[in-house]
Amino acid sequence: MAMNKIPQATAKRLPLYYRFLNNLNHQGKKRVSSKELSEAVKVDSATIRRDFSYFGALGKKGYGYNVEYLLGFFRKTLDQDELTDVALIGVGNLGTAFLHYNFLKNNNIQIKMAFDAAKEKVGTDIGGVPVYHIEDLEDKMTGIKVAILTIPASEADGITNRLVEQGITGILNFTPARITVPDHIRVHHIDLAVELQALVYFLKHYPLSKED
Amino acid sequence: MAMNKIPQATAKRLPLYYRFLNNLNHQGKKRVSSKELSEAVKVDSATIRRDFSYFGALGKKGYGYNVEYLLGFFRKTLDQDELTDVALIGVGNLGTAFLHYNFLKNNNIQIKMAFDAAKEKVGTDIGGVPVYHIEDLEDKMTGIKVAILTIPASEADGITNRLVEQGITGILNFTPARITVPDHIRVHHIDLAVELQALVYFLKHYPLSKED
Repeated sequence: MAMNKIPQATAKRLPLYYRFLNNLNHQGKKRVSSKELSEAVKVDSATIRRDFSYFGALGKKGYGYNVEYLLGFFRKTLDQDELTDVALIGVGNLGTAFLHYNFLKNNNIQIKMAFDAAKEKVGTDIGGVPVYHIEDLEDKMTGIKVAILTIPASEADGITNRLVEQGITGILNFTPARITVPDHIRVHHIDLAVELQALVYFLKHYPLSKED
Repeated sequence: MAMNKIPQATAKRLPLYYRFLNNLNHQGKKRVSSKELSEAVKVDSATIRRDFSYFGALGKKGYGYNVEYLLGFFRKTLDQDELTDVALIGVGNLGTAFLHYNFLKNNNIQIKMAFDAAKEKVGTDIGGVPVYHIEDLEDKMTGIKVAILTIPASEADGITNRLVEQGITGILNFTPARITVPDHIRVHHIDLAVELQALVYFLKHYPLSKED
């Protein structure tokens, strides 16, 4: 592939930049300094400049960045004009939080359908998203290539195998299980306990001081 | 500080290593190869070796790693024997998911109390954690230094200021808001929309192929 690969950490910040620039644009702001950008998204200026450098130089010294240009650029980069359909597997507390999250507001992503095994949830509509029975996954999920897993860890392997059979290409895995998939399927794993533990680890070992 | 600083990405993997080793130990396994470790935690061997190198060489060629030694080492490193109390602010769907997550099972972290503004939640007990009224935050939260924010973005700034006054040192921020805190307070930010958007971005721009 001819495209420059950008680090995953950079890719994760792109939506943050995009969201902030979108807000600025709505407020009618025409330009933004790298300092303002840095304070708003809580990313240091050096990192922002390095991130932007992966896409070519976009700012001018003493002027900062042109909001509209930058926005157009990010919109294209993030394919904001192209909608991706996503399926949510598991309508527990975390799954329900996802369904109430209004992704479309700033994003190019739509949770199109959800699946659960609980009879009282099947047939309902949560946050505008229909909930189907997990047994109907193969029938309903045609054409959807991305799934969010918010099921119990014990269910993760079985459901993952069914998603793989179904032709999924990406899984956002919120279960504590480390799932096994063929090489051509991308899995991002987020574990709430690990995130919390990492914060506590950093607090204990690298306390920030008021004098720093 | 004399300790070597380890990268944040490495710190995030430590709890994964710890959890897997703990399982192995329960199964009575005495040693583990770097390949097995790699397959189980879904981290490539080179990364595992580099991560471990920050703590000194721990493995032996052709033998692998001694599970018990490694476990003792990680337990000490992650302070598994020392309990950290955490407060959860916001008992919506995401907050409730946290309360039902049994952190103590493999961790050194305990959600000690939760806060919400909804009358029907105050005074209840979710997953063994008492829910107090958000107005009682200053009275109840004495001695707790870590908070998880699962409140609406519009509430984030006001609550953050109260937590700062209260002497908090770390915040795990799940709101889409980028909160502002003094330099001595550590904030880790996790945005569900950003995580999903990053996955979709990678799928579009860096598809993995079956031939890779």
